[in-house]
Amino acid sequence: MSLTKADNKISKGRYFEDFELGEKIVHPLPRTISDGDVSFYIALTGSRFAVHSSDVMAKEFGYRARPIDDILLFHLVFGKSVVDVSLNAIANLGYAEVSFPQAVFVGDTVHLTSTVIGLKENSNGKSGNVYVHSQGFNQNNELILSFKRWVMVHKRDHDSHLQSNTIPDLDEVLPLSDSISLPEISAFDTSQTGCQFFWEDYVVGERLNHPEGITIDDSDHTLATKLYQNNAKLHFDDHMMKSSRMGQRLIYGGHVISLCRSISFNGLGNAMWIYSINSGVHANPVFAKDTIYCFSEVIDVIEHRRKDIGLLRIRTVGLKNITPEEVNSVRDEQGKYHPYVVLDLDYTLIIPRK
Amino acid sequence: MSLTKADNKISKGRYFEDFELGEKIVHPLPRTISDGDVSFYIALTGSRFAVHSSDVMAKEFGYRARPIDDILLFHLVFGKSVVDVSLNAIANLGYAEVSFPQAVFVGDTVHLTSTVIGLKENSNGKSGNVYVHSQGFNQNNELILSFKRWVMVHKRDHDSHLQSNTIPDLDEVLPLSDSISLPEISAFDTSQTGCQFFWEDYVVGERLNHPEGITIDDSDHTLATKLYQNNAKLHFDDHMMKSSRMGQRLIYGGHVISLCRSISFNGLGNAMWIYSINSGVHANPVFAKDTIYCFSEVIDVIEHRRKDIGLLRIRTVGLKNITPEEVNSVRDEQGKYHPYVVLDLDYTLIIPRK
Amino acid sequence: MSLTKADNKISKGRYFEDFELGEKIVHPLPRTISDGDVSFYIALTGSRFAVHSSDVMAKEFGYRARPIDDILLFHLVFGKSVVDVSLNAIANLGYAEVSFPQAVFVGDTVHLTSTVIGLKENSNGKSGNVYVHSQGFNQNNELILSFKRWVMVHKRDHDSHLQSNTIPDLDEVLPLSDSISLPEISAFDTSQTGCQFFWEDYVVGERLNHPEGITIDDSDHTLATKLYQNNAKLHFDDHMMKSSRMGQRLIYGGHVISLCRSISFNGLGNAMWIYSINSGVHANPVFAKDTIYCFSEVIDVIEHRRKDIGLLRIRTVGLKNITPEEVNSVRDEQGKYHPYVVLDLDYTLIIPRK
Repeated sequence: MSLTKADNKISKGRYFEDFELGEKIVHPLPRTISDGDVSFYIALTGSRFAVHSSDVMAKEFGYRARPIDDILLFHLVFGKSVVDVSLNAIANLGYAEVSFPQAVFVGDTVHLTSTVIGLKENSNGKSGNVYVHSQGFNQNNELILSFKRWVMVHKRDHDSHLQSNTIPDLDEVLPLSDSISLPEISAFDTSQTGCQFFWEDYVVGERLNHPEGITIDDSDHTLATKLYQNNAKLHFDDHMMKSSRMGQRLIYGGHVISLCRSISFNGLGNAMWIYSINSGVHANPVFAKDTIYCFSEVIDVIEHRRKDIGLLRIRTVGLKNITPEEVNSVRDEQGKYHPYVVLDLDYTLIIPRK
Repeated sequence: MSLTKADNKISKGRYFEDFELGEKIVHPLPRTISDGDVSFYIALTGSRFAVHSSDVMAKEFGYRARPIDDILLFHLVFGKSVVDVSLNAIANLGYAEVSFPQAVFVGDTVHLTSTVIGLKENSNGKSGNVYVHSQGFNQNNELILSFKRWVMVHKRDHDSHLQSNTIPDLDEVLPLSDSISLPEISAFDTSQTGCQFFWEDYVVGERLNHPEGITIDDSDHTLATKLYQNNAKLHFDDHMMKSSRMGQRLIYGGHVISLCRSISFNGLGNAMWIYSINSGVHANPVFAKDTIYCFSEVIDVIEHRRKDIGLLRIRTVGLKNITPEEVNSVRDEQGKYHPYVVLDLDYTLIIPRK
Repeated sequence: MSLTKADNKISKGRYFEDFELGEKIVHPLPRTISDGDVSFYIALTGSRFAVHSSDVMAKEFGYRARPIDDILLFHLVFGKSVVDVSLNAIANLGYAEVSFPQAVFVGDTVHLTSTVIGLKENSNGKSGNVYVHSQGFNQNNELILSFKRWVMVHKRDHDSHLQSNTIPDLDEVLPLSDSISLPEISAFDTSQTGCQFFWEDYVVGERLNHPEGITIDDSDHTLATKLYQNNAKLHFDDHMMKSSRMGQRLIYGGHVISLCRSISFNGLGNAMWIYSINSGVHANPVFAKDTIYCFSEVIDVIEHRRKDIGLLRIRTVGLKNITPEEVNSVRDEQGKYHPYVVLDLDYTLIIPRK
């Protein structure tokens, strides 16, 4: 019981030097997912995907109840990694190989562990990139979420140097699995989902200009991020952010993914399940009072050996304060994202066949 | 699988020509109502009607659990009709014959169908009025909500014309039913409800100036409307609304009804059940930062053959940014609503007798 | 059934003369606590105390499920007393002897009674202080919360006078009980709580500068207060408050306690249970857009006869728009709180021993 010990009770988050290749991190704070979380997610996003809205429909599909929306699950689990991985992050550089191997239900308790799979020092000597493979489990230790992400983290000591860089191989697209954790779909009632389109109706190259826009305000984005127990200060602390380059609180990028997913319902309403998120880039920051729009492009129409379902590889581009109809290009001539592009998401959806 | 098909995946909502007299519309998106929705409704409105707050009290009344607040149920079910009926509405013209034939509980799954009962072209040739009779059901297909409403909808083609107009007969007041779906009230503890007044205490012509006011902010009204999965763009999309006549997002009129109902608790605390909404007019738009007040007038004190309960026909007038004490008239000399009047609601409440 | 009676249906709250020494008040509105309330509390505060987050962890401790967070319970129960005690309060002067004798769970229904234990007229003749002892019970009438508080209330008649003042004796610190309602802690997994410090690690005089800040916006604080069914107008009614000295809505002091408690997680993460709140002062008002910070001081490290747990008496000082590192003194030379101090809370926490 020493004063030195006492002085060190505040966790300041990890710096680049604090990560070790191959290290396994057990993230704190298991979370029981409740009906309250599900209602909150609908209130935050306006989501209308039917299988997450109705127990009756979910049971018709063979579930024991409506499963948790994949993106809600992602936020609740991802939030746990912030305290250990990205509290001192300069930037969230990307996601890859995000998969949802098993459905999660109200009452399940989820937890998360991560393994450091890559470390790369940046040439300026001031920071480095940390690559982690994070795995979420339910109360029976069954894998329910897997993802890789990489973040740029400050170095504590600019004179310390890594012996060698390790950059992991990441799949550009999550490989297709023979077995997909989804009950066999025997009957599908489009009058309940509000969308009449099946896997066979989509064509490669097709673009969907989703017509809805949702404006974000300070209370709703901070409620979202606090709900996910994500404690990255830049989302909450306006006093601190006022003296930052941004001048105000930054909206959690995951909330923007949620809004785009919700907006994409109009056009993709039957694609209710996410097989994988292949890559995601938060191209520009989003602030309160911005209105989010998006459009989607069909990158690939993928056949599966299951005859009741197929897959669609989709690119959804999130926009701020500009409608999809007004947008012809995502990047400028130098290859830089236009300032109105806020999200570039490549993901694979599961959708019933006719 | 054709490109033409692919081009048409975005639902733009129905125009006047898309409605056919007698047509039955099955609205998508059944919804399981949860504890989360109930908490959200309390947080959005501050509602204090006791039977919706306490399982213990509800069981004393003979319910299996606290029933869902009637207005919350209305919003959750009504929200489903927006996508098919009012996405292109110029105005929501009115409600009539709104009834709540059976209590709904957490865990129930509700869905909605509508029948087109009237069509009337407007003389300018640009729009028409659509009358629908909407019926909500629980998972056992028992009727739990019935209402009629009419909306003004854009025509797609100004040169097309309806052969003849059909305007349905609507009851000015829902007729009194011999059987009311409410357990028999044997004991009633006013110390639990916070109100000491029974049916016998109210007199026709009496006016109640409810003292509370509630200010609406952007996050709370948009959370409410998204919770109800009501996707009318004018409530969410500030970018679009900035170039509209209103200049900003319009608050969902149903949220204003909820706030007035909550505010009316002080004076009508034991009138915990809604028998019917006879008519409702959103007299003026409400925007963020407006403070809602209201007063109520007793239009009728109605005896029922059940001796444990009686009914009160009430007119509640919603106001913005002016207290009830300051208001002497609802309409001006030309019969137009004063600009501070936002709601004119005629409804019938059920309240215990002594 | 008379018009006079009809005129008096609006409850205006009690004035000083309406309280009688020894009087017992049964507060209305029993409340069933639900999963929705729990999710809302996490969204409002970002709370990360593990026992309230995970059913699995709670069961490892011997609970039947995750218990309700003590401060959430306090708000839900306290809210009931506003209508009878503090609707006409000029100021909430203080709390004392707040204790949590028994854990509360989702599905429990709580109610509240208060006894008037003190009355003191103020020398200006215009107001008086009312002291109440409030006790919350669950559906089995087991005591689950006990607290004393005193408020300054307007007199109705400045010429009426109290015969004699009665000021109750209040404990400066709640006495230590031999029996603490907490399952015996046999194993404690710090990797799940995110904090490695036990009772033995804290020393008297130690100061913890909690690094996080949370900015409050209008929607979130009004959602919180409405969730608690606390109907004090000054939190909701911006129209009224604009013409007050404050010029805007005042944030419910309890919400500030919640935010400080949540922020104190970083440093006090294993002190998951509140034994008592010994005293609390809302030193300055908090308004929307203020950012809340706090620091904590260890006042006492208290041994208990149970060997699995110990107690920490903590003072947490809430700040607005200034970080803990910048604050050296809480009061100025005249003994007045600095304008940036918003909360001075003295409370005793329960924390596992090694």
